[in-house]
Amino acid sequence: MRYVITVQYDGSGFHGWQKQPNEKETIQQHLEEAIEKITGRPVSVTGSGRTDEGVHALGQVAHFDSEKIMPGPKWVAAINFYLPAKIRVIRCEEKPNDFDARKSAKKKTYMYRMYSSPVESPLRAGRETWVKSLDVSAMDRAVRGLEGTHDFSSFMTAGSSAKSPVRTIYSASVAREGSSVVFRITGNGFLYNMVRIIAAILMKIGSKEIPQGSLIEIMEQKDRSKALGLAPASALYLQSVEYTD
Amino acid sequence: MRYVITVQYDGSGFHGWQKQPNEKETIQQHLEEAIEKITGRPVSVTGSGRTDEGVHALGQVAHFDSEKIMPGPKWVAAINFYLPAKIRVIRCEEKPNDFDARKSAKKKTYMYRMYSSPVESPLRAGRETWVKSLDVSAMDRAVRGLEGTHDFSSFMTAGSSAKSPVRTIYSASVAREGSSVVFRITGNGFLYNMVRIIAAILMKIGSKEIPQGSLIEIMEQKDRSKALGLAPASALYLQSVEYTD
Repeated sequence: MRYVITVQYDGSGFHGWQKQPNEKETIQQHLEEAIEKITGRPVSVTGSGRTDEGVHALGQVAHFDSEKIMPGPKWVAAINFYLPAKIRVIRCEEKPNDFDARKSAKKKTYMYRMYSSPVESPLRAGRETWVKSLDVSAMDRAVRGLEGTHDFSSFMTAGSSAKSPVRTIYSASVAREGSSVVFRITGNGFLYNMVRIIAAILMKIGSKEIPQGSLIEIMEQKDRSKALGLAPASALYLQSVEYTD
Repeated sequence: MRYVITVQYDGSGFHGWQKQPNEKETIQQHLEEAIEKITGRPVSVTGSGRTDEGVHALGQVAHFDSEKIMPGPKWVAAINFYLPAKIRVIRCEEKPNDFDARKSAKKKTYMYRMYSSPVESPLRAGRETWVKSLDVSAMDRAVRGLEGTHDFSSFMTAGSSAKSPVRTIYSASVAREGSSVVFRITGNGFLYNMVRIIAAILMKIGSKEIPQGSLIEIMEQKDRSKALGLAPASALYLQSVEYTD
């Protein structure tokens, strides 16, 4: 039986999603260990994709196969019983065997959270990135230029294994939500570090270090050496993965 | 010269505001040590009031006296340089010598943050209290009954040093804010543990363990043995202190 789980995690203190050959703690490894404790058999958990060290998830999706038949809510309770508190399965459903958490994914949405204030807030540390001041409407106008199908080579870290740098962005926006500034981006996929590279450029636009048009100019150069660093992982969230068009 | 500072802190890992005779870490102690490092002289920092172990602050106010004359923003930068990252001074102003952060305070606002979802969220741990489901409008109707001047003996923990259990509540409400449920209460002062006792009762009303009218019934009994436990400190925030009527 194939089961699909939706997972939330606080990425701090883990070495990302992907299981590591050494002893490092990862989300995938914790999930596999928890399920093995329930079923008594080795199991492989396949995520919709990796998240880097320190990146959080509100709705990561993964699948695993098990001969053990249990209703979804029982799996949720049983897996959570064995997981560390920073990882929680929030849903589990049966799916047909041709459903693949990675290959069947149609859209992903990432969220990058920032706030601006004269002084860094201790209550937002590890969750949102502090910027002294942010011009939210300039950031929003800049980022909307990413919508559509483009070659995103400029926003890719060296070492990316992607075959093609072309991706489709369905929506991209920057908006105030309460006292936070939130950058959201939905696409059919993302290159390695792409969201953090874009977030770093947006923060420079927001704090007027570079002009609003820079984001699209950098994209159009299709050259990853033009990219301007990585925004901190601790404010990045994999928000959701969608499986229908 | 009398200086008044506004302070934010993540209360986790500290033994509350108040300096302790033993070696325990407290907010007041860290502030006094930071200011002593700047001025080279012992200093006493007087807060608007104590906050308990684990309670956070977005706008705690305190005063201290110093012969050292510096503009506010310089004090902010200098004190923050010596503080641990979980405590931040966000403002510093000169005030006349008759301004007293505790005695001059006219109103305080506390915020208690909750959220409801089928499973506890790792990204809200230490910041908001999880309740499976909450009837927000029942909670709001219940808490509005506290507005006005009342004897709040029922909402006081044994050991309170308050001379009178009578306080005036200017406003009290429960509302959704994004995906959170926020209880806010503004009063001329609060008895020991009063906000956490009220929050615990409100969560029982919200999850339909007790009827909506229970909060006022308990208040009217003026008997602290009727109180129903303490809501966790990690979701309580001293939001602001006001000094004008």
